Amino acid sequence: MARSIYFFGAGQADGDATMKALLGGKGAGLAEMSRLGVPVPPGFTITTEVCTAYYAGGAVLPEEVASGLPEAMGRIETIVGGGFGSKTEPLLVSVRSGSRASMPGMMDTILNLGLNDAIVAGLAARTGNERFALDAYRRFILTYAGVVLGVAREQFEEALVAARRKAATTLGVEHSRLNNAELERKVPDSVLDPEALRGLIAREKEIVLAATGKPFPDDPWDQLRGAIQAVFGSWNNHRAKVYRKMNDIPESWGTACTVQAMVFGNMGDDSGTGVAFTRDPSTGERLFFGEWLPNAQGEDVVAGVRTPNPISKGRGDDARSLEVLMPEAFKQLMAVQARLESHFRDMQDMEFTIQGGSLYLLQTRNGKRTGRASVRIAVEMVKEKVITEHEAILRVDPSSIDQLLHPSLDPNAPKTLLARGLPASPGAGTGQIVFSADEAERRAAQGTAVILVRAETSPEDIHGMKAAQGILTARGGMTSHAAVVARGMGKSCVAGCSSVSVGRDAMTVTLYDDDGRPTGTKSFKAGDVITLDGGTGRVYQGAVPTVAASLSGEFGELMGWADKVRRMRVRANADTPHDARTARNFGAEGVGLCRTEHMFFDEERIEAVREMILAGDKTARHRAVDKLLPFQREDFIGVFKEMAGLPVTIRLLDPPLHEFLPQEKAQLEQMAQVLGVSVQEVVRKNEELHEFNPMLGHRGCRLAITYPEIYEMQVRAILEAACEVAAAGVEVHPEIMIPLTMTRRELVVMRELVDRIAEKVFADKGRKVAFHFGTMIELPRAAIRAGELAEDAEFFSFGTNDLTQTTLGISRDDAGKFLGAYVDTGIFAKDPFQSIDVPGVGALVEMACARGRATRKDIHLGVCGEHGGDPASVSFFEKAGLDYVSCSPYRVPIARLAAAQASLLAGSHAGPKATD
Amino acid sequence: MARSIYFFGAGQADGDATMKALLGGKGAGLAEMSRLGVPVPPGFTITTEVCTAYYAGGAVLPEEVASGLPEAMGRIETIVGGGFGSKTEPLLVSVRSGSRASMPGMMDTILNLGLNDAIVAGLAARTGNERFALDAYRRFILTYAGVVLGVAREQFEEALVAARRKAATTLGVEHSRLNNAELERKVPDSVLDPEALRGLIAREKEIVLAATGKPFPDDPWDQLRGAIQAVFGSWNNHRAKVYRKMNDIPESWGTACTVQAMVFGNMGDDSGTGVAFTRDPSTGERLFFGEWLPNAQGEDVVAGVRTPNPISKGRGDDARSLEVLMPEAFKQLMAVQARLESHFRDMQDMEFTIQGGSLYLLQTRNGKRTGRASVRIAVEMVKEKVITEHEAILRVDPSSIDQLLHPSLDPNAPKTLLARGLPASPGAGTGQIVFSADEAERRAAQGTAVILVRAETSPEDIHGMKAAQGILTARGGMTSHAAVVARGMGKSCVAGCSSVSVGRDAMTVTLYDDDGRPTGTKSFKAGDVITLDGGTGRVYQGAVPTVAASLSGEFGELMGWADKVRRMRVRANADTPHDARTARNFGAEGVGLCRTEHMFFDEERIEAVREMILAGDKTARHRAVDKLLPFQREDFIGVFKEMAGLPVTIRLLDPPLHEFLPQEKAQLEQMAQVLGVSVQEVVRKNEELHEFNPMLGHRGCRLAITYPEIYEMQVRAILEAACEVAAAGVEVHPEIMIPLTMTRRELVVMRELVDRIAEKVFADKGRKVAFHFGTMIELPRAAIRAGELAEDAEFFSFGTNDLTQTTLGISRDDAGKFLGAYVDTGIFAKDPFQSIDVPGVGALVEMACARGRATRKDIHLGVCGEHGGDPASVSFFEKAGLDYVSCSPYRVPIARLAAAQASLLAGSHAGPKATD
Repeated sequence: MARSIYFFGAGQADGDATMKALLGGKGAGLAEMSRLGVPVPPGFTITTEVCTAYYAGGAVLPEEVASGLPEAMGRIETIVGGGFGSKTEPLLVSVRSGSRASMPGMMDTILNLGLNDAIVAGLAARTGNERFALDAYRRFILTYAGVVLGVAREQFEEALVAARRKAATTLGVEHSRLNNAELERKVPDSVLDPEALRGLIAREKEIVLAATGKPFPDDPWDQLRGAIQAVFGSWNNHRAKVYRKMNDIPESWGTACTVQAMVFGNMGDDSGTGVAFTRDPSTGERLFFGEWLPNAQGEDVVAGVRTPNPISKGRGDDARSLEVLMPEAFKQLMAVQARLESHFRDMQDMEFTIQGGSLYLLQTRNGKRTGRASVRIAVEMVKEKVITEHEAILRVDPSSIDQLLHPSLDPNAPKTLLARGLPASPGAGTGQIVFSADEAERRAAQGTAVILVRAETSPEDIHGMKAAQGILTARGGMTSHAAVVARGMGKSCVAGCSSVSVGRDAMTVTLYDDDGRPTGTKSFKAGDVITLDGGTGRVYQGAVPTVAASLSGEFGELMGWADKVRRMRVRANADTPHDARTARNFGAEGVGLCRTEHMFFDEERIEAVREMILAGDKTARHRAVDKLLPFQREDFIGVFKEMAGLPVTIRLLDPPLHEFLPQEKAQLEQMAQVLGVSVQEVVRKNEELHEFNPMLGHRGCRLAITYPEIYEMQVRAILEAACEVAAAGVEVHPEIMIPLTMTRRELVVMRELVDRIAEKVFADKGRKVAFHFGTMIELPRAAIRAGELAEDAEFFSFGTNDLTQTTLGISRDDAGKFLGAYVDTGIFAKDPFQSIDVPGVGALVEMACARGRATRKDIHLGVCGEHGGDPASVSFFEKAGLDYVSCSPYRVPIARLAAAQASLLAGSHAGPKATD
Repeated sequence: MARSIYFFGAGQADGDATMKALLGGKGAGLAEMSRLGVPVPPGFTITTEVCTAYYAGGAVLPEEVASGLPEAMGRIETIVGGGFGSKTEPLLVSVRSGSRASMPGMMDTILNLGLNDAIVAGLAARTGNERFALDAYRRFILTYAGVVLGVAREQFEEALVAARRKAATTLGVEHSRLNNAELERKVPDSVLDPEALRGLIAREKEIVLAATGKPFPDDPWDQLRGAIQAVFGSWNNHRAKVYRKMNDIPESWGTACTVQAMVFGNMGDDSGTGVAFTRDPSTGERLFFGEWLPNAQGEDVVAGVRTPNPISKGRGDDARSLEVLMPEAFKQLMAVQARLESHFRDMQDMEFTIQGGSLYLLQTRNGKRTGRASVRIAVEMVKEKVITEHEAILRVDPSSIDQLLHPSLDPNAPKTLLARGLPASPGAGTGQIVFSADEAERRAAQGTAVILVRAETSPEDIHGMKAAQGILTARGGMTSHAAVVARGMGKSCVAGCSSVSVGRDAMTVTLYDDDGRPTGTKSFKAGDVITLDGGTGRVYQGAVPTVAASLSGEFGELMGWADKVRRMRVRANADTPHDARTARNFGAEGVGLCRTEHMFFDEERIEAVREMILAGDKTARHRAVDKLLPFQREDFIGVFKEMAGLPVTIRLLDPPLHEFLPQEKAQLEQMAQVLGVSVQEVVRKNEELHEFNPMLGHRGCRLAITYPEIYEMQVRAILEAACEVAAAGVEVHPEIMIPLTMTRRELVVMRELVDRIAEKVFADKGRKVAFHFGTMIELPRAAIRAGELAEDAEFFSFGTNDLTQTTLGISRDDAGKFLGAYVDTGIFAKDPFQSIDVPGVGALVEMACARGRATRKDIHLGVCGEHGGDPASVSFFEKAGLDYVSCSPYRVPIARLAAAQASLLAGSHAGPKATD
């Protein structure tokens, strides 16, 4: 075995960022930071090869590793100036796993290792904080007992509950009826005093003795060896093995083990902890930006329990800024942040702790940012000559620019201001108030827009934040959990809104007059509607109207660069002239999907549609569809004009007919009256049309096989419209698309229908308009038989929504009940309706492309499902060689950027290649 | 061009059966019969090459063909002794298309060609039947005007209606309120007298003159040339082109045109027409069997308008038999039938006409027969050394033996006899009376068993016959349309039941006493229940209980031969010990699909199932599933014992949970009471579980990802049952099958669950039982990712029902609205739920087999969808190399025979190869 222990700290390191396989991701990252001269708590990493040797040797730590620990620890002691096992200057360490691939939460971590009864007394003396020292000790024993000694948690929890109840009695809190969770809320750990903690520690040791037959190990070196073995052992725990199997991570990789000095920001007034960004993560402005808390632990800042102080002057209360209170540490931090940004060539998000005046960086990573900031940073870095245009294109997550494209509050709309908080994540959000993440998810699944209101958020709230239109918190700053996560999600968020008091079922807002004097309170319960403006931090009562997004100059620049390199065209799904105009404004290069049925729901038209459905024979059906003809023709004329010069793909009627009938009794009665038929007749028709699985029912071109009159009318409307606008000098490129095709024979029948009507229309109009005939590929059979379909179809458009539903056998409408569990447990890496399932659905897309091209070399290939606006999917479509993607108008810029990235990554872009 | 006209007749022919490409199917068949010395009406066939030349020459009949017609016609005249165009001995001919491939109804046919005003008078004189002659003439003009001259039908129809109304007035029938269809019923063509027909003919000629500007062609030769050109022209009519495109028939083939002498069985008492079989098509007995009508046209026998006479003595009214009335023709017919059966080595179904004492065979083909007859004929022909055992296996349509396996009436059950008819097709059928084919289809689609009752049936009734449990007709014989079609379908049929009078909405049965004296009538309306016994021709009132099928000795012999050659195993889908026993009696070699959920519906169990569904948490769910455990274990013990020594594949819970909840209010209330929860809670749960597309919903292993307790219980029940029966000395081979798998990760989770429970059970029981773990392949994604799934699955079982639903995007429950149209228009050759869609679904099966085997060479492959019992599908599964098929117990013998046929055809059978 080569070297087995790699040291890092004090500007040096045995390893570096390239050594992930040997040191794990964490160890390699710490080594790299240390090499850069960034102060990190010193430590050492025991390699993954030792892990392999550990297993090969029968789960025993190799002797040369065990014997090397004192020397490695000595180097840490030299740097931090304490001693491992020392009672006066105690050095505590963390012991963590770290594998080549991220396996979050799968393996074990032990903090505060190196304590025993004597040392904890020294720590208390040294820090002047007995409660802190004893709490650290009690938590260490708890973790160590579980992870290293394998003692079950139940008894420890009982002991903690007993201690809490005792404290509650002391505090005079009535607790006999509280359950454990309620008790924890009323009696948090922080109220356990040193005496209570000492009692708890003694009880913990009794539990360990009873369970293992041995006293808890007092010797820090015994503790250390035990912890290292436990970390290696955790590579093979049950959940880690299942996780690896599911993520195709080889068993042979093993984990590294990193031992690192603990640093504490809560050791007094010369200590502190904070979070900082090298640029403003909200706007992208080149401005160092951060928050800190003196004499606090890192989790205090992130959890938003205390509202933090600014780091620099001029960003709030200068007197409490780091710049003023610890000028030396501030100076050092400024240097470090500049160094890190220039090294990683991107905006950094850093966690730091100051212990006794010394700065330590705990972590740095590329910072999360809003879409707006992302664009601005990328464009400005090009101008600063830090990165190239191509890099700038690749830097911006296309999904994140969704935020720039969403409407904001109408400045002219009347608004009732309720409160002000921090502008934590931009964008407007309106919805019904909910007070729990579960409720948010539940209501959103029913189609209700909700605003999640919480005192503060934690990782357990993420599913509710996802489901909500916006998040409002009463506590926490711009770097609180709520703010960071909301920015990442592009959700509107107002944080630290202190005039709001949040209960379990209600929130109370204290109202103020213009001079800031409280004028009263107003209560809101779940279901009341509020509106957030995440860009200003304002909260409004009720729903406030919104206006369209306005895009920054940087955005335009970036999109210009993207359009230069992109190979695939981007079209939009647009059903009306209005949608078509919006899409064209966003840069759409045609309509990839115009859904004719959306035009059917208009009040004047739905009557004719229903008459058509109720028609007893061909003649009556003809009469009804003839009424629809002028409406459809007008719609198409409008869309053709908006898309002058660009292709417009029109899909013939797709949904099952029952979608056009009302379901409620009163409406059915009204419909019967309007159409002059009996209610029984309408009810009978409704029952006749009912389907068990409408997704797989009588829809798409199946309707035209049984009732050709509908498609005949639609084709006539399309081609008459095309002739009319062509006559008016508009360049028109209609494409007629057949939905839900599964066999070539269907296309033969449809092609015949289309050609027959076309011949008639062109004869009537005395003019021919070139058009294309093609089909959706949205059933597995269509993909499999694509070679045949291409005999008749001049283009394919992949309907990846339905193709996903059928290939995976998942109804999108019903998937809510299990899809979450599928994504959470990693069975799906992503929701396959958001991001295409490449190995399954993608395989069918590739098959259809290959087979289609084999028959018809120049077949035109596109996609018109929701995936057309999903960056990961767009990247796949680039690889599959599609000619275009089509998505909703607001996603067109996302698709343009994603297509540019895909071209760059695939090397299919115009201009200089990736090597430049 | 080579020879363009091929003559046949009088024991000679220029062509033979091998020349289908040149002469078309019809022309080649007539040539072959003529060569065999079988008397056929003489004629000649103009080749398909002439058709090609016709198009190449600009739609003009080549001169050498036109000039060759008189000589060819002369040969016909010589044989029949008449003259084409002769007024005294007129020869009429038919002109028909006939292509290499059958294109039923696509091209045109003209009958009775060669008539004009003068010749029709001669024909009337010659036949002594003026009405017959004039009716033939009127029909000829109508057809010729449409087919050759391209005159629209409407005016001809108006003329016919006018003639009918005039006749109605003459007859004193009140007709002013009758619509055309009602008029036709009241005033059939047969009541139009010569004067009326003459008026109609004059009117038809006026219409032709007005439409074409020319008089109707009087010259028979002009008529003939025109008709030949029209037949060639019809190759390119619109519907023929679409049909060819849909059926992949090359445009270049062209059609042949056959001109043949018309013969008439209604030319007097020395004429007649009939249908005969070389063996009894109902029992298979070696006995010549047929029916005829003197002085009648062929359609009179087939349509069943008149009840026919026997051909041989001893089969009814000897005095009216052909054997007695025309002993010469009878002798000739006996010789011909022997010649045809020995030539074609199969039972023949022949149509013949006797004109003026001369016998003519119009057609011979392998006769349709009942399943029972099919088996008997095949086995007896082996014993007669006419065919080999392998040929016998291939001779029997496996579907047809379904009839042998179906229950018949319980001989001991009390019955109320209503009527007796002819035993037209064996088997028992019970159902509600319906009076139209449409109604039969509609009600059957709703799950109602129906009996179709008609005066007689025609090809328009076929869809209703398919849907019905049985068919009852008031008219027609054993060879009537109803009888022939019902036998082919294996449906019970009682034909010619003359005591029944059928109206539009009701039937009246005349009842008789034991001496045959009428005692009164009894009326039945739609919805009343009757029972047919097609084996005896008896009709019973109400539903009569049935008993299981008993199989003949020939059947056993044939199955024994089949089992000797078959490669694939045949298992059964059996959910209960009773099903398993039935299946084993039918020769099943294991259970391929045991659906655990069918065990859930038992009264004592459903309560626990519902408790499980309503459980709010894991603990409550555990409590509920624990109640189910003993039931499930008992079921499995029963099935394992019945299948001792054979594999049993058990599928874990598959359907969505809402299937186990009641839907009606009263039941919901009762359920709430039984489970001690509020009705609201039950209603809420019901709503929560509602799915838009349950087929694609929360079911299969998705249930186990969210609620693992259910599968844990099921696996425990399976393995505890296996241990128990193994302890009792029973050989047990359990196979645990996961439904609706789409990703490997699901299987990883499921495999872990199964192994974990197995370890516990085996430890508890102190005994291990070997079992296999595998998955259904029933989603396209599973087929695509089969290579990965085979990492964990030791076997695949193709669930071709669901795979068809998802691959084609068709919900089986909803397909009724369009699938009929799809099959009727030829978009689907067959219902893909009955016979596997080889190019689509089959392609996925083949892909999955190949990918599964690539990962796991010895992976075991089977199918457990309905297709496992469909012969065409079984043939595909043989080619795909599956190890077994599994089907419902009653279809096991069908699958055994189909698998044997597939082995023979694929050359994969045991024993002597196909060349022997």
